[in-house]
Amino acid sequence: MKAEIIAVGTELLLGQIVNTNAQFLSQKLAGLGVDVYFQTVVGDNAGRLREAIEIGRSRADLLVFTGGLGPTQDDLTKDVLAEYLNRNLLIHEPSMAQIEHMFSSRGIHMVESNRRQALMIEGGEPLENTTGLAVGNGLSVDGTLYLLLPGPPREMKPMMDGAGEAWLRAELGAADPLYSRILKFAGIGESNLEAKLIPLIDGQIDPTIAPYAKEGEVSIRVSTKAGSAIDADQKIDETVAKIKALVGEFLYAQEDIPLEEEVIHLLRASRRKLASAESISGGLLAELITNVPGSSGEYVGGVVTYTNIMKHHLLSIPLTQLEGEGAPGAISDSTAAIMAERVRELSDADFGVSLTGVAGPAESEGKPVGLVYVGISQRGRATEVFTLNLSGGRSMIRLRAVKSALYRLWLALNRE
Amino acid sequence: MKAEIIAVGTELLLGQIVNTNAQFLSQKLAGLGVDVYFQTVVGDNAGRLREAIEIGRSRADLLVFTGGLGPTQDDLTKDVLAEYLNRNLLIHEPSMAQIEHMFSSRGIHMVESNRRQALMIEGGEPLENTTGLAVGNGLSVDGTLYLLLPGPPREMKPMMDGAGEAWLRAELGAADPLYSRILKFAGIGESNLEAKLIPLIDGQIDPTIAPYAKEGEVSIRVSTKAGSAIDADQKIDETVAKIKALVGEFLYAQEDIPLEEEVIHLLRASRRKLASAESISGGLLAELITNVPGSSGEYVGGVVTYTNIMKHHLLSIPLTQLEGEGAPGAISDSTAAIMAERVRELSDADFGVSLTGVAGPAESEGKPVGLVYVGISQRGRATEVFTLNLSGGRSMIRLRAVKSALYRLWLALNRE
Repeated sequence: MKAEIIAVGTELLLGQIVNTNAQFLSQKLAGLGVDVYFQTVVGDNAGRLREAIEIGRSRADLLVFTGGLGPTQDDLTKDVLAEYLNRNLLIHEPSMAQIEHMFSSRGIHMVESNRRQALMIEGGEPLENTTGLAVGNGLSVDGTLYLLLPGPPREMKPMMDGAGEAWLRAELGAADPLYSRILKFAGIGESNLEAKLIPLIDGQIDPTIAPYAKEGEVSIRVSTKAGSAIDADQKIDETVAKIKALVGEFLYAQEDIPLEEEVIHLLRASRRKLASAESISGGLLAELITNVPGSSGEYVGGVVTYTNIMKHHLLSIPLTQLEGEGAPGAISDSTAAIMAERVRELSDADFGVSLTGVAGPAESEGKPVGLVYVGISQRGRATEVFTLNLSGGRSMIRLRAVKSALYRLWLALNRE
Repeated sequence: MKAEIIAVGTELLLGQIVNTNAQFLSQKLAGLGVDVYFQTVVGDNAGRLREAIEIGRSRADLLVFTGGLGPTQDDLTKDVLAEYLNRNLLIHEPSMAQIEHMFSSRGIHMVESNRRQALMIEGGEPLENTTGLAVGNGLSVDGTLYLLLPGPPREMKPMMDGAGEAWLRAELGAADPLYSRILKFAGIGESNLEAKLIPLIDGQIDPTIAPYAKEGEVSIRVSTKAGSAIDADQKIDETVAKIKALVGEFLYAQEDIPLEEEVIHLLRASRRKLASAESISGGLLAELITNVPGSSGEYVGGVVTYTNIMKHHLLSIPLTQLEGEGAPGAISDSTAAIMAERVRELSDADFGVSLTGVAGPAESEGKPVGLVYVGISQRGRATEVFTLNLSGGRSMIRLRAVKSALYRLWLALNRE
């Protein structure tokens, strides 16, 4: 099954928004065992949209459209496809009732064009929109499948995960659908992980093992076709056991969650609390952690001691440690250790984590860009400091430093 | 001039990365007065890439390629296009020398395939890669322009901004090229800004005024065709004066920089320092500010007092202010004021900024999701507190709260 994703919208061609829908749909289709050969973006223009449909029809078995289902005269996807297929547009009554109810319940006058959102192409299956008004469509015509989804991601994603996927699975008609599991890794780079897994990947036909990259994260997806979720789980479990034997110390989750969320889970499970003292990362660690909903139960807070004077004022680090001839300096393993200890003591937390280093663009204290010290202070244990030599630009060094600190915390939380 | 952007890379079709290059190039081409009619993504496959070239050639005057210029056997863009155009691939000697020098200076053995990155298509113009090894290419063949750029954004963007744009401007050969200026706004929503500017936009033909949206920011682009940069500046200045008359209190920059960078500039110009105390935003304000290179001269640091105990320990806020019957609570205007004052005093800074509120998903202290207090403490002035009622999910509320706080800082820095 070869697929093409066709995103419709002039705002994409003007660069006003980035086409995240194409990424979401590509991942989704890969997970269903469908190969995406092309992604196309076309504007709100009937002639060029028809051209894109004709080309797509000639080189794919499945065309997935996103965008152009709304109420305005610029929303053309259903009209153009209906004309191309020589079919009528019909009103989907339940959707029309939903649209009318939405407006009347809010006491808003409904502009007539809103009725367009209830249209569907004759012979197609309506796909429920649980977060918006435009109904989706699934059609099978002369051996080609057409799936019509809305453009706004908050409508498109739930529809694809719900009615869209159900319709597509039924049309694909696989007796054995594809199941998959995401494995998340930390403390190891992507190429290094792949190198360690090569003996496994090379010999592995079912389940398949494939990399699944995201910015700043390392993941793989294990997929298999099976008659039931239970059978699939068993097959995937066996493969995961082999992966664990090779790289288990880097595997932090068997679902698609960020490392900071798993750290919060482990803190919660062991009823322990964390505080942070950041210099190089300037609040990024705190920001990632507090972005996990409910993290205030485990993360008490911390300091961003971006300058020596703040390290002195907030953490009572003597200036003789930080400045002057022969002093270790702010960027040193001993300063990292003191920062982690002091912030933990100040907040009576179980863990204190610290980051100090050089993000660039220029060196600092005569120390090179990319040198970072991570301190971990744990109640009742000797403080540990880890030295990192990171590459990349300023933002990348900061992100990698924070992810390394989270990895060290994760290891500490797992060792008991 | 009609253009098509062709991104080459199987990782895009698998959804491993999002196609931010297409957005960057679309914006860039719009700024040069070129209309993008299609964006295409194709995998690392010679047959399908050739097909994409043929289709693009039939419907566009300019094909902009990104990706497939690297050293591996999967990097096919130059090979496939050269074959399509029936031209030879030649070695660009300066690029080859640069590649060899890079490897020898680092003492790394060079794999032979790296030489492929110095190849260019016969008759084309080499485009210098200042951040990587693969040379770009610009070609004009039979009335069609071909621009070949690398795939990694950190190589593609500098090349497009530099040699790529220069080559394209020369080929477009416009006597009157398009000039444009980005205006950045804060403290006002996009739809509100547009509503205020409608009288101006409606009557305006030259220069044009168009929205230019980015996540969490509000910008417009003013563009004009002119015989010289000086003429263009004069025309744009006149339009900007009209815009200022309508919405001047929200216009913080006439270049594409984030608000936090302008705040740092203003602090630097007036030799003043800033400290922060964050609760709801959990370090996001500190993180945005410290992401501005060189910000350590103006931003001393701050605290992330995510829990009441940390507000008490780090900022010496009495627990009677924060908890218990009749206490104002952590989410209150008086707590915001104390946080801003204490962190400013602690660090001997000129400004202290604070954020406390409810990001959700659930209410807190009986206060609703989206309620946020921003405190601004300035040396020698009465402390101000601003109450916000924000909508959106957890991340959006945090981002909007931080941008509002930066806007209030910007206003304070401008009032003297």
